[in-house]
Amino acid sequence: MGMVGGGSDAFIGAIHRLAALMDNQIELVCGCFSSDPDISLSSGRSYFLPENRIYKTYREMFEKETRLPAGERMDFISIVTPNVVHFDPARMALENGFHVVIDKPITFTLEEALELKNLIKKTGLTLALTHTYSGYPAVKEARERVQRGDFGKIRRIYAEYPQGWLSSKLEDTGNPQASWRTDPKRSGKAGSMGDIGTHAFHLTEYISGLKATELCAELNVFVPGRLLDDDGAALVRFNNGARGVIMATQVAAGEENAIKIRIYGDKGGLEWTQAEPNTLWLKWTDRPVEMVRTGHPYMGPAAKHNTRTPAGHPEGYLEAFANIYRNFSLTVRARLDGQEPLPLWLDFPTVDDGIRGMQFIDAVVKAGYADAPKWVKF
Amino acid sequence: MGMVGGGSDAFIGAIHRLAALMDNQIELVCGCFSSDPDISLSSGRSYFLPENRIYKTYREMFEKETRLPAGERMDFISIVTPNVVHFDPARMALENGFHVVIDKPITFTLEEALELKNLIKKTGLTLALTHTYSGYPAVKEARERVQRGDFGKIRRIYAEYPQGWLSSKLEDTGNPQASWRTDPKRSGKAGSMGDIGTHAFHLTEYISGLKATELCAELNVFVPGRLLDDDGAALVRFNNGARGVIMATQVAAGEENAIKIRIYGDKGGLEWTQAEPNTLWLKWTDRPVEMVRTGHPYMGPAAKHNTRTPAGHPEGYLEAFANIYRNFSLTVRARLDGQEPLPLWLDFPTVDDGIRGMQFIDAVVKAGYADAPKWVKF
Amino acid sequence: MGMVGGGSDAFIGAIHRLAALMDNQIELVCGCFSSDPDISLSSGRSYFLPENRIYKTYREMFEKETRLPAGERMDFISIVTPNVVHFDPARMALENGFHVVIDKPITFTLEEALELKNLIKKTGLTLALTHTYSGYPAVKEARERVQRGDFGKIRRIYAEYPQGWLSSKLEDTGNPQASWRTDPKRSGKAGSMGDIGTHAFHLTEYISGLKATELCAELNVFVPGRLLDDDGAALVRFNNGARGVIMATQVAAGEENAIKIRIYGDKGGLEWTQAEPNTLWLKWTDRPVEMVRTGHPYMGPAAKHNTRTPAGHPEGYLEAFANIYRNFSLTVRARLDGQEPLPLWLDFPTVDDGIRGMQFIDAVVKAGYADAPKWVKF
Amino acid sequence: MGMVGGGSDAFIGAIHRLAALMDNQIELVCGCFSSDPDISLSSGRSYFLPENRIYKTYREMFEKETRLPAGERMDFISIVTPNVVHFDPARMALENGFHVVIDKPITFTLEEALELKNLIKKTGLTLALTHTYSGYPAVKEARERVQRGDFGKIRRIYAEYPQGWLSSKLEDTGNPQASWRTDPKRSGKAGSMGDIGTHAFHLTEYISGLKATELCAELNVFVPGRLLDDDGAALVRFNNGARGVIMATQVAAGEENAIKIRIYGDKGGLEWTQAEPNTLWLKWTDRPVEMVRTGHPYMGPAAKHNTRTPAGHPEGYLEAFANIYRNFSLTVRARLDGQEPLPLWLDFPTVDDGIRGMQFIDAVVKAGYADAPKWVKF
Repeated sequence: MGMVGGGSDAFIGAIHRLAALMDNQIELVCGCFSSDPDISLSSGRSYFLPENRIYKTYREMFEKETRLPAGERMDFISIVTPNVVHFDPARMALENGFHVVIDKPITFTLEEALELKNLIKKTGLTLALTHTYSGYPAVKEARERVQRGDFGKIRRIYAEYPQGWLSSKLEDTGNPQASWRTDPKRSGKAGSMGDIGTHAFHLTEYISGLKATELCAELNVFVPGRLLDDDGAALVRFNNGARGVIMATQVAAGEENAIKIRIYGDKGGLEWTQAEPNTLWLKWTDRPVEMVRTGHPYMGPAAKHNTRTPAGHPEGYLEAFANIYRNFSLTVRARLDGQEPLPLWLDFPTVDDGIRGMQFIDAVVKAGYADAPKWVKF
Repeated sequence: MGMVGGGSDAFIGAIHRLAALMDNQIELVCGCFSSDPDISLSSGRSYFLPENRIYKTYREMFEKETRLPAGERMDFISIVTPNVVHFDPARMALENGFHVVIDKPITFTLEEALELKNLIKKTGLTLALTHTYSGYPAVKEARERVQRGDFGKIRRIYAEYPQGWLSSKLEDTGNPQASWRTDPKRSGKAGSMGDIGTHAFHLTEYISGLKATELCAELNVFVPGRLLDDDGAALVRFNNGARGVIMATQVAAGEENAIKIRIYGDKGGLEWTQAEPNTLWLKWTDRPVEMVRTGHPYMGPAAKHNTRTPAGHPEGYLEAFANIYRNFSLTVRARLDGQEPLPLWLDFPTVDDGIRGMQFIDAVVKAGYADAPKWVKF
Repeated sequence: MGMVGGGSDAFIGAIHRLAALMDNQIELVCGCFSSDPDISLSSGRSYFLPENRIYKTYREMFEKETRLPAGERMDFISIVTPNVVHFDPARMALENGFHVVIDKPITFTLEEALELKNLIKKTGLTLALTHTYSGYPAVKEARERVQRGDFGKIRRIYAEYPQGWLSSKLEDTGNPQASWRTDPKRSGKAGSMGDIGTHAFHLTEYISGLKATELCAELNVFVPGRLLDDDGAALVRFNNGARGVIMATQVAAGEENAIKIRIYGDKGGLEWTQAEPNTLWLKWTDRPVEMVRTGHPYMGPAAKHNTRTPAGHPEGYLEAFANIYRNFSLTVRARLDGQEPLPLWLDFPTVDDGIRGMQFIDAVVKAGYADAPKWVKF
Repeated sequence: MGMVGGGSDAFIGAIHRLAALMDNQIELVCGCFSSDPDISLSSGRSYFLPENRIYKTYREMFEKETRLPAGERMDFISIVTPNVVHFDPARMALENGFHVVIDKPITFTLEEALELKNLIKKTGLTLALTHTYSGYPAVKEARERVQRGDFGKIRRIYAEYPQGWLSSKLEDTGNPQASWRTDPKRSGKAGSMGDIGTHAFHLTEYISGLKATELCAELNVFVPGRLLDDDGAALVRFNNGARGVIMATQVAAGEENAIKIRIYGDKGGLEWTQAEPNTLWLKWTDRPVEMVRTGHPYMGPAAKHNTRTPAGHPEGYLEAFANIYRNFSLTVRARLDGQEPLPLWLDFPTVDDGIRGMQFIDAVVKAGYADAPKWVKF
């Protein structure tokens, strides 16, 4: 694995490394860790890399890595830069024969996402998008149970993602996370909806197996002087007639990272919340609520494949993240070995999920600021 | 207290009696407990009433009670019939000098509610509307803390009320609760939004002290053959610029009665859910979440006045209900004695809350079925 | 109902009245509400009693009530005084033909409790002991499920009752509750173990259907100058070989009233905690934990009989208390009518539970201060 | 890092690798992964080790590694074998100049533990004991707050560790975890008390900073035919006069791994449970309960140093485990570099905690089967 971004001053880069390395399947071999060459160098050193594999630009990285012998050069890159710097390194990676892991939202614009899709089609390479929350085993269990019909026909979906960390104008205090996320030039056309609304939206389609077809939304900018939405809510229609509400906010003062989803069919419902990620609640019309927990023999194959500890030994965010890396690396390894990956390994978000995310962003922004509310198809 | 409705076959009538009687401040002295005179009679007997105070019609009740001497006749009536039979007994009560407790929604139409308001103005009598959930002491504490500014300027409100009991066509099985609630001729123009959406809406205004000004909504009928909404969601705008989402559904299969509200200002937020009614969560941007609990000396005067047990001795739905009756009866007693009720006693929902509820119903129905979504003012 | 104790300055008396009156089955007709005649009088007036039914002493009450005609005089008395004043009014009531409700622990000494048992045998009268926590419907459901064998052979019981209100020397501040409870002359030979340990102990036998046979304990006095235990823990052996731990403390600073019980058999286990009284957790070795909730059709007959609201409308401490009064009054009424009470009505704590409580106190005190620990049979 | 044990058929070995590798500070370079050379070989290969670093015996490993050049040979070993095979490889490692990570309980007997202590004293090498639960940041926060006096003088400690996985005779089904843990020849003189009771005991001393001085206990064997305790409870006295209860059971059918600790002083108390590991509850006599959460700026230095994700991104068991490895490796690296480790790095369990654990086992076994109960000093 090589990295683009993820210097020692960056939050999400450290998360990616932890997630990639924990299973002893992936090695960090090179990287361009910052647009500032000094930071890239010092970061790379602190990751125990030899200096000749620490690059000043990602362009240089692709050039030099391509020339290394097959067993030695990186197999894939992980892109953990602000949204505006997603597309170019991804494109170069694919054009140079490297697989790609990329943070969400996949690109700065929908057009870029579609172009990546074309490149993947052309090259046959593999791309994983780190929608972390669908990496949780309990979420995979939810999906399995919904899609095999345990809850009957799905009618109602509530997905919410309240955060509070942008309740004040944090971007003016030098906080780098806040700074680029609230800047339309680096983040894109959406703020909260791009940063976290896409996660909530992804869960609705991932678990339900449905497709959203149109939405009506209101986006808000609560903190004065901010240029992008820091809050919003959308009414969503799904292709089977189900109805959803997607709520995302970064000004719910005092909330941490409380992504939660509830789905109801005509026979029962489910609830999952990231604050208690190893638990899945099943609700029934005629019998007691069940508390399904990861690590038990009664769990389905997807949950089991994505669990590392026995019941009662909580797993968390890093393990969910690591599930994406592990499934991606199992898939890439199989393909490098000329074999067909197992279906369980292919269970990670791809460019198609990235495109759905960009379509959601486009739709929610179009609907969210309209003079009169309207249903926007997507 | 005399009752209209509340025969031994009715759910909500029993609740009203428990709530009214527990504090030893109110006595059940008469009633017309059913439109079926036999049920009225047998019900009245089972409540230990003398036969001459068990009436065949509420008309008869008003006639005969009016003629009784002041110390003997009922002071007020409690109306616990289906919505379509709210207005007429309420009107007659007011016209005959009796105070009124009435179940929500206050009337069948907004016009009736406005007429009740006129009658109350004219007669100076007292009307209490049983929006039970604002009777909880923790909700009153929430209100006190929001309105004194603990959370700063309010920005975001989420109110939800998921139930699952109407997930199937229960009204076809002879269930009387389901039967009238899903019948537009007895329930009014809204189903879930009238029955439970009004409760959620009431909490938003009660706690925040704000007024909703317009909403955009979608109402749904999920169970085939049903005539009224059994589900819906609304985006709501408040008069200070705050934004709300109100969700109410009776087809969230497996949910009980999970009304919940969250309110966020620029300094912090709060969360209250009826499933754990003695707890109020306070959330802060810079310090730990606080779990405020009823019965503690640190609670404010409204919470204290409406709590009967020390901390750790849970109170529930009946006590919340009883708070409305107790405050109403303290108010009526003071007025009967020619005294000014204490402000704490006046803290029960009135005809004005009833009117707001009917306006909410009108607006959400108007918005909820529109061809194109729109903002409906109310 | 007549009352002994329960003046307007007393906590538990108010609870008894709420519990007795809410179901419209019991009327407060007389009482001696305080050893101070003025307080008794003013209390009685505030309860709307005629002055001739407000008594100066309980002796006077028994004398005068006995002379009233049958339909008019009280049917039973409720004794809500400090422990030292339990036995005498109970004895006089039984000797004068009145049924008795009495707060726990039943008496000041075991000998008194045994004498009450003799009197009950002799008179055929009914006595209810207000071990409130076994009045909760979820506790009754637990009992039903344990005793029909759902969890297999019971092995392990944990019962705990942590409170924090006596963490400091509250008795020196004039708090009347603290004052008599920490005074061996009014409370008896045990402090925390008598006041709350007996509740925890009662739950173990009530739910499991087992009998404790011996215990080994340590009692502690943590607050300097206090004369009775404010904390303790006991290892307990049951008659089927099961083992228990009973923990009770009133110096767990910050705890409210957190009584909780867990019972495990060879097939599964259960957990109930009063902080969330409408929920019973069922735990299994081979399938998900189940959350059983009061008010659902799937509940057993005992839970149903003792529930007043539908699922999702929380009941609390007062309703649990009221269940004792209701079952007691149904039983007394049946017996007054010369009929056999239904088994469901007989489900309230009796003099036998009172004796078990006194035996527990004797044993735990004997074991708890021993120089060397020992197993004390009881 | 070299490993003793941890073949691909072992549970805890995989956990150790995940924990050791995730921070990119430790590399697995060699190992003897099983007493079966074939399993050792296939395991080592699956961990991407060269064949010459996969050993048949740990004796061979020490011989060969010692001869490798300094930069190449392993720096420390991780011992993850059944208890009976702890001492010998630990002794050999220390005698050959390798640091040691060892699973708990540290050895088979107390004598062995004391001998390891001598060896460490003599060699100056570093030993870490994997009492995972004190690796959680919320536990470290608890410790910091207790020891700086937030809760006043500590009076009461409850530590419990209920598991249910040994409710039936799992050791007869070929389950390797159950098999050695219930075998006195491989596990030692205690079953549940050694396996999990030591964890609970460790938390009491780690958080409180107190020393237990004596205990009175009962140990039970509930599953017929089992040779070691599968359940037990102990009353414990601490050196400041505080009293504790330690409960450990592996037959609480339906429980997962529910270790929990509560500590109360005269000013307040705390609660932590591994099922919700990122939360620490603070309880106060005069103000609301506080929910302290990892990842917030308000946390103390120890919690911060041991947290990898921002608030709301749950960490779990593997991260707690990794904290031990990270602090150990930071300490070892500093010592290898001739520097003094920071105090924060030294915060991992050592041989002294191992000795305390063995003393606890000795005491609880001595007390737990006595004919008459007694206080056993330790």
